[in-house]
Amino acid sequence: MRPDGRNPTDLRPIQLDVGYLKRAPGSCLVSFGDTRVLTSVTVEERVPPFRLGRGGWLSAEYGMLPGSTQDRKKRDQGKQDGRAVEIQRLIGRALRAAVRIESLPQLTLWVDCDVIEADGGTRCAAITGAYVSLAVALKRLQKKGTLKDAGAVLATSVSAISIGLVGGYLCVDLDYAEDSTAEADLNVVATGDGRLVEVAGAAEKGSFDRKQLDQMIDAGLAANVKLRALQEGAIRAAVDKL
Amino acid sequence: MRPDGRNPTDLRPIQLDVGYLKRAPGSCLVSFGDTRVLTSVTVEERVPPFRLGRGGWLSAEYGMLPGSTQDRKKRDQGKQDGRAVEIQRLIGRALRAAVRIESLPQLTLWVDCDVIEADGGTRCAAITGAYVSLAVALKRLQKKGTLKDAGAVLATSVSAISIGLVGGYLCVDLDYAEDSTAEADLNVVATGDGRLVEVAGAAEKGSFDRKQLDQMIDAGLAANVKLRALQEGAIRAAVDKL
Amino acid sequence: MRPDGRNPTDLRPIQLDVGYLKRAPGSCLVSFGDTRVLTSVTVEERVPPFRLGRGGWLSAEYGMLPGSTQDRKKRDQGKQDGRAVEIQRLIGRALRAAVRIESLPQLTLWVDCDVIEADGGTRCAAITGAYVSLAVALKRLQKKGTLKDAGAVLATSVSAISIGLVGGYLCVDLDYAEDSTAEADLNVVATGDGRLVEVAGAAEKGSFDRKQLDQMIDAGLAANVKLRALQEGAIRAAVDKL
Amino acid sequence: MRPDGRNPTDLRPIQLDVGYLKRAPGSCLVSFGDTRVLTSVTVEERVPPFRLGRGGWLSAEYGMLPGSTQDRKKRDQGKQDGRAVEIQRLIGRALRAAVRIESLPQLTLWVDCDVIEADGGTRCAAITGAYVSLAVALKRLQKKGTLKDAGAVLATSVSAISIGLVGGYLCVDLDYAEDSTAEADLNVVATGDGRLVEVAGAAEKGSFDRKQLDQMIDAGLAANVKLRALQEGAIRAAVDKL
Amino acid sequence: MRPDGRNPTDLRPIQLDVGYLKRAPGSCLVSFGDTRVLTSVTVEERVPPFRLGRGGWLSAEYGMLPGSTQDRKKRDQGKQDGRAVEIQRLIGRALRAAVRIESLPQLTLWVDCDVIEADGGTRCAAITGAYVSLAVALKRLQKKGTLKDAGAVLATSVSAISIGLVGGYLCVDLDYAEDSTAEADLNVVATGDGRLVEVAGAAEKGSFDRKQLDQMIDAGLAANVKLRALQEGAIRAAVDKL
Amino acid sequence: MRPDGRNPTDLRPIQLDVGYLKRAPGSCLVSFGDTRVLTSVTVEERVPPFRLGRGGWLSAEYGMLPGSTQDRKKRDQGKQDGRAVEIQRLIGRALRAAVRIESLPQLTLWVDCDVIEADGGTRCAAITGAYVSLAVALKRLQKKGTLKDAGAVLATSVSAISIGLVGGYLCVDLDYAEDSTAEADLNVVATGDGRLVEVAGAAEKGSFDRKQLDQMIDAGLAANVKLRALQEGAIRAAVDKL
Repeated sequence: MRPDGRNPTDLRPIQLDVGYLKRAPGSCLVSFGDTRVLTSVTVEERVPPFRLGRGGWLSAEYGMLPGSTQDRKKRDQGKQDGRAVEIQRLIGRALRAAVRIESLPQLTLWVDCDVIEADGGTRCAAITGAYVSLAVALKRLQKKGTLKDAGAVLATSVSAISIGLVGGYLCVDLDYAEDSTAEADLNVVATGDGRLVEVAGAAEKGSFDRKQLDQMIDAGLAANVKLRALQEGAIRAAVDKL
Repeated sequence: MRPDGRNPTDLRPIQLDVGYLKRAPGSCLVSFGDTRVLTSVTVEERVPPFRLGRGGWLSAEYGMLPGSTQDRKKRDQGKQDGRAVEIQRLIGRALRAAVRIESLPQLTLWVDCDVIEADGGTRCAAITGAYVSLAVALKRLQKKGTLKDAGAVLATSVSAISIGLVGGYLCVDLDYAEDSTAEADLNVVATGDGRLVEVAGAAEKGSFDRKQLDQMIDAGLAANVKLRALQEGAIRAAVDKL
Repeated sequence: MRPDGRNPTDLRPIQLDVGYLKRAPGSCLVSFGDTRVLTSVTVEERVPPFRLGRGGWLSAEYGMLPGSTQDRKKRDQGKQDGRAVEIQRLIGRALRAAVRIESLPQLTLWVDCDVIEADGGTRCAAITGAYVSLAVALKRLQKKGTLKDAGAVLATSVSAISIGLVGGYLCVDLDYAEDSTAEADLNVVATGDGRLVEVAGAAEKGSFDRKQLDQMIDAGLAANVKLRALQEGAIRAAVDKL
Repeated sequence: MRPDGRNPTDLRPIQLDVGYLKRAPGSCLVSFGDTRVLTSVTVEERVPPFRLGRGGWLSAEYGMLPGSTQDRKKRDQGKQDGRAVEIQRLIGRALRAAVRIESLPQLTLWVDCDVIEADGGTRCAAITGAYVSLAVALKRLQKKGTLKDAGAVLATSVSAISIGLVGGYLCVDLDYAEDSTAEADLNVVATGDGRLVEVAGAAEKGSFDRKQLDQMIDAGLAANVKLRALQEGAIRAAVDKL
Repeated sequence: MRPDGRNPTDLRPIQLDVGYLKRAPGSCLVSFGDTRVLTSVTVEERVPPFRLGRGGWLSAEYGMLPGSTQDRKKRDQGKQDGRAVEIQRLIGRALRAAVRIESLPQLTLWVDCDVIEADGGTRCAAITGAYVSLAVALKRLQKKGTLKDAGAVLATSVSAISIGLVGGYLCVDLDYAEDSTAEADLNVVATGDGRLVEVAGAAEKGSFDRKQLDQMIDAGLAANVKLRALQEGAIRAAVDKL
Repeated sequence: MRPDGRNPTDLRPIQLDVGYLKRAPGSCLVSFGDTRVLTSVTVEERVPPFRLGRGGWLSAEYGMLPGSTQDRKKRDQGKQDGRAVEIQRLIGRALRAAVRIESLPQLTLWVDCDVIEADGGTRCAAITGAYVSLAVALKRLQKKGTLKDAGAVLATSVSAISIGLVGGYLCVDLDYAEDSTAEADLNVVATGDGRLVEVAGAAEKGSFDRKQLDQMIDAGLAANVKLRALQEGAIRAAVDKL
């Protein structure tokens, strides 16, 4: 059993507070245990140059509030921090996998993920919450008449989870303490129907073997099925109120 | 009566959610109506060069999340936005007026104010909430033994309110709709005992006269008395639980 | 009496050297005692995006030459210094209060204020001199035919003065030595006919009371009347020579 | 068969031109077909702050020369490009997996990977060549007496290869034309003894399934065995000449 | 005789490896002894604003790879290094002297010069190699039909050499060791027919006299005649293969 | 005769207003006709890292005020303009040629040259005026006791002048109109005793020949003799008053 009483494949308590912002078309404050990320989807009525005349675009940004980490996180000034760049590129790819951007009109969906408090797994929480924000935002755009059919734009659902090897044992949804002692860790981004969007795993100390990778992938796919159910419930409740 | 049913000198509903962050020494999610600002106070164990050997320092930063505004607020990249610079300098001066920095040990108190959702008056909400974060953080530092006497460091309380002339009438605590049509607007930063820390008023259209300024200052001082009572209650409840 | 022999409400010697630059449409080297600021107004034949199709715009910038201060002022490289940002925003608001920007054609008036030598009160000297540069530039634009009626564009005059509490006494037009020991200081920006454009006062040590604020405002309004007379003389002499 | 005549699991012609730079402690111009990357390892006699008193450090940077791509790649000015940040973080992690940094003295090994000409797979070529540069540089440091035992510092070898699904078929070592039409692509970073350091795979169009992932990983591990043999030969020849 | 056995007016071994890049319209890896610079010419189908409707433009950039210098050269981040700015402005002027830009169609020729390894004289090697890249690129544009007549665009050839006073003696084509002990050094940029494009000489220690300058200029003109012959041979061989 | 009535080798009216700034150790507002540059020399009590333990240093910076040019010069924001970088490097080299920096104590002399109004030849005016500021500053440092012997630090005097070929004729001290139509232009930086510190000449249209270069250098050396006399007079008058 883990320090917080979880079994190896247990998720932390997950919350999806949809509509946290009053004015953004879609928003969701997502919690994976003590990790909290505010995700929002807003709409800009134009596309980047390389998408002119070719449907819409979806762009993601990720940041951490200064008070979100144990030691205060300095604000970026001039130079963006490399880890944030890497994470926001992952988020963007994950969500674009869920969307048929060529079916969008000429607009950009901005996905913002800002970490309110960080306790491990912020990128997975961000993807999971951002998908909820996205699904609600598309429905709202349909209601406003900007989109004909939100369902036609949304190709699939997407969520993400981290898995690690900690002291030789596989653990799902690592918190910060586990993450910082893990021998290896893997993020699995998957669709609602069990297909893979992205896998990114790295040894933190040396290397890992093929069998360990297989186990981590299996656990990741299983966890994403649970996340998918939570996402569906939250979206349905929010869409009913639109 | 105002569009939202308030009388001219009424504040919007004020909430001070102290301890919103689990790990920051002091934090407070402050709401003035639909304006929400997350304030936090963290500690860095060193001072800027000009304070070496001369007590501590307090430094404030202010930012807006991209989803906080009607039109998405772009993240700063390289160049900080002028309005934010102006506001964070105001917040820093206001809070330094409440603290005897020469009584602090050689450390920097970082005050971060991040706007979650903006509906007018973010700088005043930030100052009011940040003071609460600060008072709680100092008590916590005292408990940890970093400070001998938090009371000796805290010279006074501080809060802030905006007042405007809208369609010729004086209004307290403007929301965004009022703010954007005001002829003049004034921010009054005051201590708990009715003294002034900073007044900053500007005509938005032409100019205003001496008598109007006097009325705005009177209204501002009165509103700060109400804020002071709310701050005291919130701090006391939070400190009891430390 | 003050160290330099002035009475509390005396201004320092004021000079307005209009037309200091040969080619700029308007320029004025303004001195408040040893404080010297070169102000200029130039014209760009376009407006920022938010003013397209809606008259003209006026934008101000403020800088200090490296040799202007006791310790050499480093040039900005990449990151503009916060104090300068705050000051140039004040100058811009002050001068826009004097101009009916909706009566301008689609052009931007650039107001540049560069401190040649700093001895306190640079922002007030800048506003006072920049107004002179502006009035002359508008007349010149009228002569060139770019404007029909400079008088219709100029809504009012504007000037500014600092007032402080030094050792408990009110002093007008602080020099650097006074400014750095003042308990409180206030900048009063006013129109030629005694109305207020902006008041910005801050306690440097703790706080000040309502009565002190009133006295400072009174003194500020009175000093601006004197500045107005000097501005008028300088503008008239310069316009006669156009 | 592929357009260039290769079988699905064939590598392109691989060249490792060791000692391409005369003065850098380690250097290797690596070619994977028409992709050429100049890798070098240089030594700085200090460590970043977080490694003070704790062995050495290894830091990687990646760039593309302006003429390396079909359309000229603009130089970074101020803001580094997100893709490059992501890649250089990957290279750094991969090479740190090969090195016992706690056995290094207090110095930083700088690994620079600059793309001379890009035709797909630059990050894998960079890792493969940089490992060669690193091994030679460590031997040279041993010869100079900076290190006691280069072998004790080098924990394992490391190389990398890309695998993709192109038109439904698995292909190893994609060139640019293949890469830009692939449905999914995976980079496999592995040690000389067949263990995994990092796997990073992403669907470019929708998603892929578990079985496809398994096949790609198998092919990646097999290709890295071939790369390992080439690295060993190149290093041995270069070390003999030291 | 010099440390490497050269006579005072001898050049180092010069190599011009034309077509080093497969896809750039023109490229040349130029060596002056151990100094190696990769030059390339690429084409952008638009011009900077000040050339709209007025023929084409040619713009040069210069950089050093991190491993090119004895001590690793840090990559520019945000702020470009002053020496590089100075050099790339020189290269741009030198090559524009060789081209009738008003005879170009509306396109920009980008000349990139990246130092692979630095051993003195990089700016002269860059100009000499870049001219070769340029001549080949223009011929290729003619073949593609973008230009009617490459010869009409190319006004003259251009090359460059450094000359120095080392220990009182005049030396041509200084290597790094000579350059860093020279009392004075001069770069002479000249056309194929012996006219001057740019001379830039500076005393490194004090000053030099008129007669020394004359001798340096004579030696520079003579060396450029030799470079011209090498350029011609390399261009002819490359153009034959187009 | 030239448009302003000058003969080919005439300088424009030269003024050297020494002590223009009250507090800087050395300052001089220099005019070459309508070109005015404010130069100042200030002292920082430390040296850059590469001069630690090795005497002092001298560093120059050059800027243009926004109102100094016909079209307003935008302030640098983030990226310094290439021309300014090139010029300030020239100024720094020129003045370091005049100073024995190894005889200075461990301090940095900052030379700032800010163009008030530009009408051609700003870099030459800057060098000529900055030398005057420098000589006075060194004398003042001697008086204060920071230096033992200002004369021992000052190796020689330095001044600069531009010469051009305009319409086939040689002209000295070009104004902006001449400069922008010149076929070639040369800056000659020389010492008081007729030796060369730097020559930098470039063809603006094509090339120039050896004989033309010789004539320009002769004219430049002669003009610098005149500047030297003016510098001496100005310095002597200023030093007498110290």
